[in-house]
Amino acid sequence: MALSEFSLIERFFAERARRGPRRAVLGIGDDCALIAPEPGQLLAVSTDMLVEGRHFLPDVDPQSLGHKTLAVNLSDLAAMGAKPRAFTLALALQTPQETWLEAFAEGLFALAERFDCALVGGDTTRGPLNLCVTVFGDVPAQAALRRDGARDGDDVWVSGTLGDARAGLGVLRGEWAASLFDSHELDCLRRRLDRPEPRIALGLALRGIAQCALDVSDGLAGDLRHILERSRVRALIDVDAIPRSKAVSKLPLDAQRQCVLAGGDDYELVFTAPPNARDAIIDAGGRAEVAVTRIGTISALRHATDEPAIAWHDASHAPLSLTLHGFDHFDANRPD
Amino acid sequence: MALSEFSLIERFFAERARRGPRRAVLGIGDDCALIAPEPGQLLAVSTDMLVEGRHFLPDVDPQSLGHKTLAVNLSDLAAMGAKPRAFTLALALQTPQETWLEAFAEGLFALAERFDCALVGGDTTRGPLNLCVTVFGDVPAQAALRRDGARDGDDVWVSGTLGDARAGLGVLRGEWAASLFDSHELDCLRRRLDRPEPRIALGLALRGIAQCALDVSDGLAGDLRHILERSRVRALIDVDAIPRSKAVSKLPLDAQRQCVLAGGDDYELVFTAPPNARDAIIDAGGRAEVAVTRIGTISALRHATDEPAIAWHDASHAPLSLTLHGFDHFDANRPD
Repeated sequence: MALSEFSLIERFFAERARRGPRRAVLGIGDDCALIAPEPGQLLAVSTDMLVEGRHFLPDVDPQSLGHKTLAVNLSDLAAMGAKPRAFTLALALQTPQETWLEAFAEGLFALAERFDCALVGGDTTRGPLNLCVTVFGDVPAQAALRRDGARDGDDVWVSGTLGDARAGLGVLRGEWAASLFDSHELDCLRRRLDRPEPRIALGLALRGIAQCALDVSDGLAGDLRHILERSRVRALIDVDAIPRSKAVSKLPLDAQRQCVLAGGDDYELVFTAPPNARDAIIDAGGRAEVAVTRIGTISALRHATDEPAIAWHDASHAPLSLTLHGFDHFDANRPD
Repeated sequence: MALSEFSLIERFFAERARRGPRRAVLGIGDDCALIAPEPGQLLAVSTDMLVEGRHFLPDVDPQSLGHKTLAVNLSDLAAMGAKPRAFTLALALQTPQETWLEAFAEGLFALAERFDCALVGGDTTRGPLNLCVTVFGDVPAQAALRRDGARDGDDVWVSGTLGDARAGLGVLRGEWAASLFDSHELDCLRRRLDRPEPRIALGLALRGIAQCALDVSDGLAGDLRHILERSRVRALIDVDAIPRSKAVSKLPLDAQRQCVLAGGDDYELVFTAPPNARDAIIDAGGRAEVAVTRIGTISALRHATDEPAIAWHDASHAPLSLTLHGFDHFDANRPD
């Protein structure tokens, strides 16, 4: 069945957007949407593109895909300490299918409405499946959790557990036996892969407490390095302190570390704050209803030749030499 | 040669973005960019996705593609009367080639710098070639050229000439003989197709004069209908008054009308204003260095059963019955 571009936009997106939250002066249907941040605040802007085979499997459930398409973008707002306001969606599809679009829109809007985030514009075209969202949030200039805010002596924290999404992918790919896990664990791993939860509440709770954050989309080892490079510091990380679920703990130690350190798609927050903020951070985690765990410390570059880098050690403080790579979309050798 | 995602961003985009205009509090390299409109103004936001085979030919010159990727988005700002401020770029590529990326970036940044528009963020991934830009501009709330602003008695105007891009595509496709045109005309047609010029200066000059505008990306017949539907009015259009270049005038009359009315990719502005604004509009066109031409009038819906529609006539005022369609990306029957 042929759906025209305009009836498609109207039927699956514009009509529901009009019923949703009003977060723009002018929304869908004009050349541009018109928006403004809350008075005295800045607009945080982020864009992410999702491609079949790179960010989701060809047989992905469309409702999960709708969720994930927006979730990975909201996660960038969370990592900035920004409050979601609005988003645009650009969508390339080979053949628009009503049932597919309906499920995709359901997953997308369920998440958008939960975070009071309005669809204000977009584009649809025919082409290989591609989803590109640009998201907007409000943040006071001084409260933004920037990557360049890590300082000597800061603790390094992470939210939730790491490695679950990668472990779920491993099950789907047959890298390890599904029989390792009970059905509840299998559901949890799959859910972490398909329906990541953006840590918006935690990002907001950390305003004024943490100075620096990012979201772990490409693996802790690679992503933490962005903080170190922007802040010109080093990190000392206790690999055994990195929180992992009971399910991930069932994997062999090597596989655990691969998942926890180099697995993408977790969308937890890694953030830094001075030691005197520990109580406030645990309190912020409690308010946001997500565990927060200290995994290491930040140290200054001591010598002119020092480079931003991560020194890994285990629970016994024995140094570990790890050759792990983050999830690099153009790295032909990436492990996953 | 394998380029990693991060070195690719750094080498072809981030480094040059840092040398360009500063239009954001925080630009490339964090989870989000941080921007704000000029005090008292709104941020106009638009997003467009370009796909091979739909918006450009597979053998397109990458420098032209870089230009066009941003130009079609700037055109949406022009149609809103907004002043360009910043943009994000999401890019899916099968195999990153240095020479291709260098040329693409050259075309992109040459246009961005001309309009003082800063690259503030983006995303790169491996996948079928896809380019998605989200663009931001400043506009005072009362000056925005919205689609719902057309009123009974308004003149309908168009900038520049229509149909050139479609005529250029027809030459490439062999729909009509290249020998119809001299080499200067062929260059002009090809340039209109490959390097559209966003009418930013005209959009700004029309602030406070016109109340309603859009950019002609999908063909006048289809695009004008969006104004009529949003404004709940009708239009009476003189087909022979629609400005066309000397080159397009060489085509058979049927082909001329197809190009002028249903051809996409012209990126001229169509706008409406009351008759007492005629002198001011001609003056605005002069300041923006682009021709502006009156092609018809807006009339109110007279009866409860009236629907927003276009009544076409020729120079002798004889009604024309035209069966033309705009450029609909999901219309399997689209003529081009």
